Amino acid sequence: MPRPLPSHPFDDDKLREECGVFGVIGVADAANFVALGLHALQHRGQEAGGIVSHDAQAGFQSARRFGYVRDTFTSASLMETLPGPLAIGHVRYSTAGSKGQTAIRDVQPFFGEFAMGGAAIAHNGNITNADALRRELIERGSIFQSSSDSECIIHLMARSLQRTIPERMEDALRRVEGAFSIVAMTRTKLIGVRDPLGVRPLVLGQLGDGHVLASETCALDIIGAGFIREIEPGEMVVINADGIESHRPFRPKRPRFCIFEHVYFSRPDSILGGRSVYETREAIGRELAKEAPVEAELVCPVPDSGTPAAIGYSLQSGIPYAMGIIRNQYMGRTFIEPTEQIRNMGVRLKLNVNRALIRGKRVILVDDSVVRGTTSQKIKEMILDAGAAEVHFRIASPPTAWPCFYGVDTPNRDKLLAATMSEEEMRAHLGVDSLRFISLDGLYRAVGEATGRNADHPQYCDACFSGEYPVEPADMIEKGFRLKAAE
Amino acid sequence: MPRPLPSHPFDDDKLREECGVFGVIGVADAANFVALGLHALQHRGQEAGGIVSHDAQAGFQSARRFGYVRDTFTSASLMETLPGPLAIGHVRYSTAGSKGQTAIRDVQPFFGEFAMGGAAIAHNGNITNADALRRELIERGSIFQSSSDSECIIHLMARSLQRTIPERMEDALRRVEGAFSIVAMTRTKLIGVRDPLGVRPLVLGQLGDGHVLASETCALDIIGAGFIREIEPGEMVVINADGIESHRPFRPKRPRFCIFEHVYFSRPDSILGGRSVYETREAIGRELAKEAPVEAELVCPVPDSGTPAAIGYSLQSGIPYAMGIIRNQYMGRTFIEPTEQIRNMGVRLKLNVNRALIRGKRVILVDDSVVRGTTSQKIKEMILDAGAAEVHFRIASPPTAWPCFYGVDTPNRDKLLAATMSEEEMRAHLGVDSLRFISLDGLYRAVGEATGRNADHPQYCDACFSGEYPVEPADMIEKGFRLKAAE
Amino acid sequence: MPRPLPSHPFDDDKLREECGVFGVIGVADAANFVALGLHALQHRGQEAGGIVSHDAQAGFQSARRFGYVRDTFTSASLMETLPGPLAIGHVRYSTAGSKGQTAIRDVQPFFGEFAMGGAAIAHNGNITNADALRRELIERGSIFQSSSDSECIIHLMARSLQRTIPERMEDALRRVEGAFSIVAMTRTKLIGVRDPLGVRPLVLGQLGDGHVLASETCALDIIGAGFIREIEPGEMVVINADGIESHRPFRPKRPRFCIFEHVYFSRPDSILGGRSVYETREAIGRELAKEAPVEAELVCPVPDSGTPAAIGYSLQSGIPYAMGIIRNQYMGRTFIEPTEQIRNMGVRLKLNVNRALIRGKRVILVDDSVVRGTTSQKIKEMILDAGAAEVHFRIASPPTAWPCFYGVDTPNRDKLLAATMSEEEMRAHLGVDSLRFISLDGLYRAVGEATGRNADHPQYCDACFSGEYPVEPADMIEKGFRLKAAE
Amino acid sequence: MPRPLPSHPFDDDKLREECGVFGVIGVADAANFVALGLHALQHRGQEAGGIVSHDAQAGFQSARRFGYVRDTFTSASLMETLPGPLAIGHVRYSTAGSKGQTAIRDVQPFFGEFAMGGAAIAHNGNITNADALRRELIERGSIFQSSSDSECIIHLMARSLQRTIPERMEDALRRVEGAFSIVAMTRTKLIGVRDPLGVRPLVLGQLGDGHVLASETCALDIIGAGFIREIEPGEMVVINADGIESHRPFRPKRPRFCIFEHVYFSRPDSILGGRSVYETREAIGRELAKEAPVEAELVCPVPDSGTPAAIGYSLQSGIPYAMGIIRNQYMGRTFIEPTEQIRNMGVRLKLNVNRALIRGKRVILVDDSVVRGTTSQKIKEMILDAGAAEVHFRIASPPTAWPCFYGVDTPNRDKLLAATMSEEEMRAHLGVDSLRFISLDGLYRAVGEATGRNADHPQYCDACFSGEYPVEPADMIEKGFRLKAAE
Repeated sequence: MPRPLPSHPFDDDKLREECGVFGVIGVADAANFVALGLHALQHRGQEAGGIVSHDAQAGFQSARRFGYVRDTFTSASLMETLPGPLAIGHVRYSTAGSKGQTAIRDVQPFFGEFAMGGAAIAHNGNITNADALRRELIERGSIFQSSSDSECIIHLMARSLQRTIPERMEDALRRVEGAFSIVAMTRTKLIGVRDPLGVRPLVLGQLGDGHVLASETCALDIIGAGFIREIEPGEMVVINADGIESHRPFRPKRPRFCIFEHVYFSRPDSILGGRSVYETREAIGRELAKEAPVEAELVCPVPDSGTPAAIGYSLQSGIPYAMGIIRNQYMGRTFIEPTEQIRNMGVRLKLNVNRALIRGKRVILVDDSVVRGTTSQKIKEMILDAGAAEVHFRIASPPTAWPCFYGVDTPNRDKLLAATMSEEEMRAHLGVDSLRFISLDGLYRAVGEATGRNADHPQYCDACFSGEYPVEPADMIEKGFRLKAAE
Repeated sequence: MPRPLPSHPFDDDKLREECGVFGVIGVADAANFVALGLHALQHRGQEAGGIVSHDAQAGFQSARRFGYVRDTFTSASLMETLPGPLAIGHVRYSTAGSKGQTAIRDVQPFFGEFAMGGAAIAHNGNITNADALRRELIERGSIFQSSSDSECIIHLMARSLQRTIPERMEDALRRVEGAFSIVAMTRTKLIGVRDPLGVRPLVLGQLGDGHVLASETCALDIIGAGFIREIEPGEMVVINADGIESHRPFRPKRPRFCIFEHVYFSRPDSILGGRSVYETREAIGRELAKEAPVEAELVCPVPDSGTPAAIGYSLQSGIPYAMGIIRNQYMGRTFIEPTEQIRNMGVRLKLNVNRALIRGKRVILVDDSVVRGTTSQKIKEMILDAGAAEVHFRIASPPTAWPCFYGVDTPNRDKLLAATMSEEEMRAHLGVDSLRFISLDGLYRAVGEATGRNADHPQYCDACFSGEYPVEPADMIEKGFRLKAAE
Repeated sequence: MPRPLPSHPFDDDKLREECGVFGVIGVADAANFVALGLHALQHRGQEAGGIVSHDAQAGFQSARRFGYVRDTFTSASLMETLPGPLAIGHVRYSTAGSKGQTAIRDVQPFFGEFAMGGAAIAHNGNITNADALRRELIERGSIFQSSSDSECIIHLMARSLQRTIPERMEDALRRVEGAFSIVAMTRTKLIGVRDPLGVRPLVLGQLGDGHVLASETCALDIIGAGFIREIEPGEMVVINADGIESHRPFRPKRPRFCIFEHVYFSRPDSILGGRSVYETREAIGRELAKEAPVEAELVCPVPDSGTPAAIGYSLQSGIPYAMGIIRNQYMGRTFIEPTEQIRNMGVRLKLNVNRALIRGKRVILVDDSVVRGTTSQKIKEMILDAGAAEVHFRIASPPTAWPCFYGVDTPNRDKLLAATMSEEEMRAHLGVDSLRFISLDGLYRAVGEATGRNADHPQYCDACFSGEYPVEPADMIEKGFRLKAAE
Repeated sequence: MPRPLPSHPFDDDKLREECGVFGVIGVADAANFVALGLHALQHRGQEAGGIVSHDAQAGFQSARRFGYVRDTFTSASLMETLPGPLAIGHVRYSTAGSKGQTAIRDVQPFFGEFAMGGAAIAHNGNITNADALRRELIERGSIFQSSSDSECIIHLMARSLQRTIPERMEDALRRVEGAFSIVAMTRTKLIGVRDPLGVRPLVLGQLGDGHVLASETCALDIIGAGFIREIEPGEMVVINADGIESHRPFRPKRPRFCIFEHVYFSRPDSILGGRSVYETREAIGRELAKEAPVEAELVCPVPDSGTPAAIGYSLQSGIPYAMGIIRNQYMGRTFIEPTEQIRNMGVRLKLNVNRALIRGKRVILVDDSVVRGTTSQKIKEMILDAGAAEVHFRIASPPTAWPCFYGVDTPNRDKLLAATMSEEEMRAHLGVDSLRFISLDGLYRAVGEATGRNADHPQYCDACFSGEYPVEPADMIEKGFRLKAAE
């Protein structure tokens, strides 16, 4: 009989950005550009997408679909139902099992009709006091239709006493806490907002005479839009035919951009802070080679996310780079109603070892992060099965020891390998010859902070590594989460 | 207004293997293993797949589906309809527009009921006298249901006077010409055949007490099967519970394996002739760096097929390897009913340049082949748009100047760039600073023939480069194709 | 060439009840009974249906589907998602083109979460001041998700200061005007309401230890429930495990039940006022035979709605009853994306004349009503084509001269044949030998009012015949509708 | 708890015609007319349909679909794929469970390519020696794709030595036995055939300059075609642009048309032998009233098939006709994946008793036939539950005691109530006050044979009543069926 195979094939064992946002104003058939932008942002949310458009004739139109943008928002017959020069869109990640299946009504953008006209809103991130706001609003007579945080903002806006929609949005934003980048629209305006810390990214681009808002620059590239600048932390831009107004609805704070966007979330061809994410990751690999050298014949990435750091490690160390693990490019997100056989296949369904290449070699495997450690373990088994002499793991991020509450799907703390084990315990657990993570200072250096992390005023949000949460996760604390200080 | 974009986004501009085959005997729920094997062979045929199984109770059962294996043959409810310890399967590529849409009845395996029981058959490759055979069979009263070559074999078997199905198959095979690897089954036997030249691959593996036939070794890996050996050119193996019989139905010839399997068709983690395809491609890159060096800051692959050769080029030349072009991993095979906007997006939908990395650099781009040259041109434009100082193309195969008639989807000869232009004309046409293809001898060296190509008795089928067809393409000649000798 | 055919095959040319409601409490898997009840009420709404259930474990669950109940709410896999001993449901008619396609979010029951728990609500009928209420609620910060009148009630309830959901509903109901029968539920209660005039029907039944609310008694029969009584005009019943409470939230008025329910809307096997609808319709036919006799060989119904009246006409007159027109029982609601050919087929797609029977005969055709007259005209043509000697139309209702604003889909007044023509003009227009409608008094007699209509205090709502609207259609008047008094 | 309900809701308890055929030549877009004709013939086969068309440009095109014609062959996008002035079509009934699910490849018309061009063929009926023919053909090298009898004819034609397709068809037909009406087509000809006994119907019509073949005249009516004549038993018509040729491929026999077509299979608006089927059924009812009178207050049909006979019974007896049982017109063919609840609902899902009407009355129920008796029993229960004083069954056909092997789906003999019980035993089994079937002579009189059945040379096929099979059911006898003579 064939020998038993490792279990659970769909365990990606990665943190997951939960959303991407995109908006366009001032070009014909704006929704088509939104569809393309969302396609470029698909890595930020693969489960579902939505687009709202506005046209003088047709008014607000919307469509929400499960599945990839390429399979849904690409048909001419659907896109014809979304006419007009103004549109926004959203892609959303499937959150983990415990939270249950997303309902189509939870797919953003969320729309509300006010006395002065309608508005649609979509966000990337998380409102950390959403539960409390929701309770308060229901108490006062609001009827909620979804479990989306965006709906809180819409209801706060509905109850605002201000006259214009942008003013009502400012009013509402002053009540919300958290980490969020918002793209919204009225009949004539495209609106972008970043939270005061600027945890989540949002960029501004130019497309002909029109303007674009996007989570990442790669989404500007796909439609041929030029990059203007990042929306600043705490900034709200209101764009219409006459140009761009900049507002500051929040009290100013020191920015704390998410450092994990550099490590994993953003696409390597996006530009953050003037440098390509790819180069930053290559720099992380170089830094890692300096911090944690080891003798070996091959440096291999865990595809695809470990690739740039592996190249950097190879370039710094002089050890040849090779594709020791091949990814099956036809692997989809998931198998519908899988057979038992498939359930037992494990990681083999999407990765295969280059057996002839690996045999007898000492191999350095570079991965971007270790979350639960389940995938790392399976990969190690595959490599050893193929006859590797030694396996050395090098991880392009510090140990992930704390959950993220700012719009990232993370396991509970007790499922995070680094929350319960030391580096040596993890090495033993994974059964590899060596295991090394980049240091937090090393990571800060790689992203361009020459002197490393400023412990008093950290330049980035690194809560998942440090346990220091720049915005109090109020709803989670109420649900029982204990801060580091409280441990 | 946004500036116009290059046209036709779906032009992959690659030769395409048309099929992959897989069969299993002697394990419970054989069809499940076939599904996994086909998933691993998906790169050989993405349009449709079929599985036939046999069970003492249920008899022959079959299912044919359009779409990826992962989306079709993974559901428990479908797979339960394919019980038994014996099953074969097939994946098929969508052939180009002119030939029209595949009908579901053209999806293999093809099944026939004979007086002594049923048999199913699937093949990878092409029967070069299929049209003539078909005419003859219809004249004698056979009713054809499909346009599949496999059906010719079934009808020849139905009219054979032999007693057993394997004997009838031998009888039939002696009438067919071409390049083909066959996987077939009766109620109790799994049968594998390679044509006398062994143009298409076929390997034999062990799975518990059972056996496996597969187009490539990567499909053994996915199910944890061990590799035994390649089926030999001209060999027919008949496998049942008692073991493996080897037959030789054909007159022996010198083997001529398809050299393009090394260049592009096979997966990099498959093993051909004892060496991983990845290593061969890396060796092609090294060879290319020796034959066609150039000064530059970066060596970048055209993803994903150019990657191993680009790594080889970098290792040989010492010029750093980098991912200058990023592939959108959510790009599907095709957009259903695409909008005009999408139709105009071109290659941007699946590739994006790492602008911040490329700017101001001299870049060597390594690709596996140039067919029509349309994609190469678009990639060059993207790289120059991003501000590259120079662009040098290095191609890991000789100029593709002749169509393949052995189971590969190729454009008409007049659409092949290399059929009508010299290397310098191609360079000028593509508008790059330099363009170099590996030499035919260089390619032979890289695949392990130390002294290069034997012009009298070439060791491989290289008709697409040389125009020397080892099997006369009889049907095509009748349709007007002119051989090199006839030009 | 085939001769041209009359146009527009889908013109049913009938008034259409827009909804049916059903609710069950106190039996296991209540939603299954709701599905069956809705199947029995399908004639009241064919476009879409929805069910909400409540279970202690699963909480509120809902499903909304387009299409027939038999095709949607019959699958075990869907029904398993609707567990619990309490459920309500709704079927809905597709309203005419001008109002556009129903969105799935407009399909009832509508659900709202209040501070003290959730509630779901569905209604049959129309709230005549819904537009005004909606404007007021938006002004005060409510966000509407649908165009359903039910949502107004939910928002009014959300803003009520009362403590319990039934109290909040009473509060809300005092603000709404119109003709409506409501079925609603909380976590533990099933609620039924009829408007003060009792325009729309609602009955109460017993199922084991549980209770049932339904638009008609035929929906009690299908699940084997016993009939208890009709909910009274202006009554609100609140049913839970302890029994049935009866409330009177409205100021009392004289009842005005819809007389058209007797003529056409209700199913012939339902019981209204102690008598089967079938018998009432047969009595209408008898009355019609007395009022408008004519010599003929055959009395034929226009199937299926004219059948009981035709039987009554035959019994009264002694002229043999016969099926001169046969209905194609495979005719669905509609053809999806019909060919031009089909578009031109007209009524022939669903009706065919019994040519051999009709030839040379004088035929009395009995139909329930004439709305636009388009179908009547086509049927007359078919009958004459088949060689009938004479065609006499007898109509089982008075001329329909006014639109209904109480939950019935009617054409604009200028499309109603009887609004613009006298009886003789209609006869000439239809081109028949005679045309007679039952008198309004005759109809009242047939439904059991021995002395006919009480002109001062009409016993029924007969606005569609008389133009006397018992509830002012406020929203419609604001949109420009002119009452009879204003003409 | 609700009381238990009778079981098995889908038991229609009727014999079922298995097919309807239709063909058109000489009008533009012939396939559209075929679709309409098949819609009119839907009662002859509800499971699936197929159309083949031919156009000079497009050649032969075909489409096969499961489901109702109105849901499949009505979309413009599908019908555009079936161009040309010549088309044939087929509807097919779902045969009972034991034979398993129809595969789409079993859906007719069946197509074959011959040396002299293609031909498509569809039939209504059954080839009684199909199994033997199939074995012989496989032995000689034919590959079968379906389990359809039509494929035997195609393979016989493929092996014929004749020159033209009509000649080959004559050749083939001389080998087949059974009861069948065939509609076939070549590139330029429409062909119709009836077996020598003319068991199954086939009529010829005129549509503009073109011609039509159809199973029944109601299918001529729907497209506005004129009726020319019935195809004669044993006749083969070959129709092309020049006109109609009549051939006689078979040895002449006395005709034996299926008498059950008059009783149940044909639509009441079709014309058989110059008289409407409706009138014949009314005459059966009159005959039944003479043979089996009884005192009662109401004559009610079991809808819909018992309606004309019930009217006849009422007219003859003077007892008022009434709709005591109402059919739910939204009842579909079947429930997909039904819940347990639905499985237990029984006949209540499609029929409901008019309780208020029935209560206290003596009721005569007229049905067309009794097959297994299961439905009759349930209807009786419903009527008694509703409080009827007496229930008298009157059946418009003699006891069905023998299975049909000529294209009708019948249960095994031991499932036929009349095969195992006398009339009195059946009455007791059903638990009704009286039960009477029309006599065989009475039925013959009602269909126009004034002197009843000619016992020596019966004028009709009445095997299902008499057990006298005019064509030997050879395949069935081989499978063990015992003829009456052999009992």
